[in-house]
Formats: sequence, structure tokens, C-alpha cells
Amino acid sequence: MSASRPQRIALIGLGTIGISMAALHLSRDSNIVDVFDTRPDFEDYIFKMLPNYMGQIPSLSSKQNPDARPSTSLVTSLVSSGRLRIHSTLESACASATIIQEQGPENVDWKQSIWAQVEAVAPPSAHLWTSTSGIAASTQQLQMRNKTRLLVVHPFNPPNIMPLLEIVPARGTSPERVEFAREYFSISGSKHRPVVIRKEIPGFVGNRLAFALLREACYLVKEDVVDAKDLDTILMASLGPRWAGNGVFESYQQGGGEGGIRAFLEKLGETMQNVWDGQGRVNVLGDEGTEWKEKVIAQVDEAYGTLSAEQIQEKEARLKDFVRIQTKKYTPEGPEV
Amino acid sequence: MSASRPQRIALIGLGTIGISMAALHLSRDSNIVDVFDTRPDFEDYIFKMLPNYMGQIPSLSSKQNPDARPSTSLVTSLVSSGRLRIHSTLESACASATIIQEQGPENVDWKQSIWAQVEAVAPPSAHLWTSTSGIAASTQQLQMRNKTRLLVVHPFNPPNIMPLLEIVPARGTSPERVEFAREYFSISGSKHRPVVIRKEIPGFVGNRLAFALLREACYLVKEDVVDAKDLDTILMASLGPRWAGNGVFESYQQGGGEGGIRAFLEKLGETMQNVWDGQGRVNVLGDEGTEWKEKVIAQVDEAYGTLSAEQIQEKEARLKDFVRIQTKKYTPEGPEV
Repeated sequence: MSASRPQRIALIGLGTIGISMAALHLSRDSNIVDVFDTRPDFEDYIFKMLPNYMGQIPSLSSKQNPDARPSTSLVTSLVSSGRLRIHSTLESACASATIIQEQGPENVDWKQSIWAQVEAVAPPSAHLWTSTSGIAASTQQLQMRNKTRLLVVHPFNPPNIMPLLEIVPARGTSPERVEFAREYFSISGSKHRPVVIRKEIPGFVGNRLAFALLREACYLVKEDVVDAKDLDTILMASLGPRWAGNGVFESYQQGGGEGGIRAFLEKLGETMQNVWDGQGRVNVLGDEGTEWKEKVIAQVDEAYGTLSAEQIQEKEARLKDFVRIQTKKYTPEGPEV
Repeated sequence: MSASRPQRIALIGLGTIGISMAALHLSRDSNIVDVFDTRPDFEDYIFKMLPNYMGQIPSLSSKQNPDARPSTSLVTSLVSSGRLRIHSTLESACASATIIQEQGPENVDWKQSIWAQVEAVAPPSAHLWTSTSGIAASTQQLQMRNKTRLLVVHPFNPPNIMPLLEIVPARGTSPERVEFAREYFSISGSKHRPVVIRKEIPGFVGNRLAFALLREACYLVKEDVVDAKDLDTILMASLGPRWAGNGVFESYQQGGGEGGIRAFLEKLGETMQNVWDGQGRVNVLGDEGTEWKEKVIAQVDEAYGTLSAEQIQEKEARLKDFVRIQTKKYTPEGPEV
């Protein structure tokens, strides 16, 4: 079945990511979304939380104000129309699904157990997606009989705004199921940008890049080259806006002028190798190389404290603007309205 | 003398960075800018190139359209009013300077030689700044008698848009001269954000962070985890916009919820350490670990080719928008106009 046709999606685990995913799937007017979670107040929780996310994902087929925040009446109408179905058993949630997606705990035993249970109750054709940020599909599916169905669909926080979805199949995942997931998130009108990762690797690609930069950042704070807040200022005043508009390879292709990235690597090669040879090798676990942690935590706490709801809202508004500008067209006469 | 008072700036070396710096200094209506370069067509070159940059840096004291591109008549008027002075000798360019800034070749011998010459002809009070991206002030000043005057002022490309200036003193640079540079670029109305780096280190901070991420990016392409263009998409669809609005430490402080970055490091610690233990150790110089280069260069060439002038203009317009949004205020009712 084509991924652009209406789907029936069963969501397992409705934490922050799960609720946001529900909003995303419901933004397509013909989808039906079945939700299941073991929390005792599950129904009340859905009525309370879902409206906060629905407003942030505009319907793909209507021109409603994307900043309006719908009330619980929207959830009532979704439930009464049958587009949103709240379940008290895994079996009933999965029974008619074309897609089953889990956002449960990041725990190997839990993931392996849930997929074995899902396999026993779900239609054999259903696509199986995990939102994990760290546990590969090949590990999660160890207790399953059919090892061609499961793949990672890793969103970035907050998934209702961040365009990226990393699609990471196991070695045995069928190519048709990979393509189905990619097609589903590429649907016309979607703001999301799915990318297929070719090999399973810890942290996938986005977090590997982020953690590589973070490691050097922690090292520079540890060595008193710069404090945490000034390092953040440096990132925001240079690499952040650069990488919001250009990838790292594209930036250096441009930076090398007519010679492209080859010229750039030649011109900057000596400084680059010096930096690479001297990179920080701090650790986050274990006894050695972890002395930076208390210093970094103290500096970050002092710089930012706990962000208020208003601060987070302001940051989300700004993030939406950044993402909007990424697809804006500029004419030679000036920006389009 | 206070950095907020009118300055007389001698610029040595008028390549892309130098021209852009001239535009930046001239945007303050009371500054006088003296320029010196050894290229034979220097005067024609200034008349031809400077207008391309002047329009992009709005005057701090007038409300001209920042997207308008002034013509050579602006350069004529700057020259006839004495605000811009084109010199054929280093001595005459430096004679009355309060600030002397070089953007010459990234070559140790050239830098050491030019500062020894400058010291012989410049007023003893003049501030000495180098725009180098790789040669520390302590190395550049080896042939100078007074080692308290020179410091690095490292801009990011394109410096007329990018807010960051890394101010990197040598160990012996006087604190007053560091503070003067910081104050100069922090002047009210300036879009620039100077940050003082506390220790000399190869690549300073911005390029160390960029190269740490680049190294992992090259490794992931080498290992066929992802191709260069998909890696760029991943960066633009997640970390770029995140780091345009939040620093890396602030992002993880927020990501940890009420527990802040401490909770984040605990929750993600295992994945993070796995990523750190498996980080790519590719090299850019030497014989070992450089096999990625031709693969990356070929993929980047195929993905982007040579960027056209129109593409670069569009990218600069977008970059300006990103930087503008960084300082925009959002009200609870929606974005301010």
C-alpha cells in the first residue's frame, strides 16, 4: 500500500515524543490514530496534553492558524469522529494498524518484549517503527520471528518543529519497508525531512555529530579556554546560523572558492590537523577523563538555571522561524513576502 | 582612549576579509580608515570592490536600506571627505592610526615581518590586531620589542554578516588592550558579538568545534553510513537550527528537563560514551587515515558543483535572516512585527 494513502497508526507509549507523534499523524485528515499507554490516568492525560501539540502542527489540508492552540474540544471531536481511539490493551490498539510506532522507555528488555508482543497481535503487513535514540532495530527485534519489519524512525526534539527523522533499518529490514517510511514522512505539504541511514551505528548520525562537538566543548571548558556560556555564544554567533542554512560540506565547498572543498582542505589542512591531533578525549562514564562534569554542570546551571515555560515557548517560536526560513525563496530584488 | 570614541584604523591587506573589515569600520560615521595593500591595481580595486560590502553593513547612525548596494560614488565621497584614505606605503597608512589591523597571508614569516615593520612606524599607543585564523599572537610577535600590544581578532566568514569575533590575546597582551577590542566591537548598534578566548589554542574555539564535527562527518562518509549530501541535510534539519537559537550547553540543559544537563548526561551517558569511544580518527595530512578525502571531495563536487553568484547571494540573504531572528523578541501573543 502506498504511504501517501490514509494510514491507521497505533502509538505505544505516549510521553512527550509519543504525544507529539500523535499530533503529527493526526495532522493528516484521513489518518486514524490508536493510542495505548499503561499510565493509570491515560484518557485524562490525552485530553489535557494533546491540544498543546495539535496547534503546533498545522493540518496539511486546511489553512488554520498554526499558532492557535486548540482546546480539549478538538480532542472530543477527534474521538467522536473515530479519528483518535484511546485503548486500554495493546491487542486492541494494534488490531487494525497499518503502522505501529513505539516511544517507550529506552531499555533493551522493554523494547525486545514489546515487539515480541506486538508481533503476536498485529496484522502481518503492519509497518513497525521505533523512535529510539540509542537501541538499534537489530537489537530490539531479537525475540521476533520475522526480522524484516522493524526499523528506527528517530525524531529530533521537539519533533513537532524539527524537520529531521533518521530512518535506520537493520541489515535484514526489507527495502520496501524503508522506502515506505521515507515516503510517508516526505508527503507533499509535510515540513519533515526524512533521511535513510545506511548502517546501524551508535547515536546514528545526528547525535554522533552533536556529541563530537559536545566532547570538544566539554574539553575547552575543562581547560579554561572559555566558559560554558561564552562557548554557547560562539556557537550561536557563527556555526549555528551557518549550519542552519548550509551543511558542513556545502559550507566548506563554498569556503574553498572556485577550488571547492579540495582547496579548502589544502588551505586549512595544517590548522585542521593540529586541531584534530589535540582534540579533547574526555569521557562521560568511568573514572578517568570525567573531571570536567561538575565544572560544566555548575557553569551551565549558573548561566541558565531552569528554563521557564515562557522561555521555552519563546525558543520554540524562534526555532519555527529558523525552520521556516530554510525553505523561503529569495528573489534578486529582496526576500519574497 | 575609550573604544566608543572615533577611531582611525589602518588596514593592511585588503583581500575579502580586509574589504569587509573596511566596510565594517566605515559604518561608524566618525571613523577614518587608512588602507594599504601591495597589489598594483590597489586604488581601482578598492573602488570596484568596496561598494559590494558597504551596502551590507548599515550605517550605525542612519536608517538607510541595508539591502541597497551603494555605487562607486560612495567611495568617491568617502575619499573626498577624508574618511577613506588609500596609501601606497605602510608608513603613511600607519602614521596616525589608533588601531592597526592586518588581514595578510596566513604565513608565519609574513606576519612576523609585518609586525616588526609596523612597530617601527606606528604610534606607540596604537592597538595591533591580526585577523588570522591559525597563527597565534604569541608567534606573530616574536620579532617585536613590545609584546603587550598584539592580539587576534578572528572574524567568521562572511564577517559583514557573521556576528562572531574571537578575541585571542597572547599571554603577555595587556588586559586593557583586550578590553578595548571587546568594547570596540560591542558598541551600541553593532550586530557583532565579540568573545574573549582565555588561552591560545590551535583553531581557537569556533574552528575547533567545527573541525570536531567535520572529522566525524568525514568518518561517517568514509564508512558509507551516509553520503555527504544526506549528512548536510541531517545537520540542517536538526543541529543547525537548534544551535542557531541555543548553544550546545543550553540545549542539553533544556533537554534534561527539570534535572538540567546533569540529568541529560545521566540519561544519555551510555549512548554518548559509546559514540565517543567509536569516534572517527581520520586525518587530513599524512599518509594514514586520509583515504576519505577523495570520496568526500567527489561526493561534495557532485552534490554542489561550484556555487553561482546568485546562489551565494541567496545564502547570504538567508544567513542575514537567521542572524536577525536571533535577536528578535517574541511576545506571548505572537512574534513582534
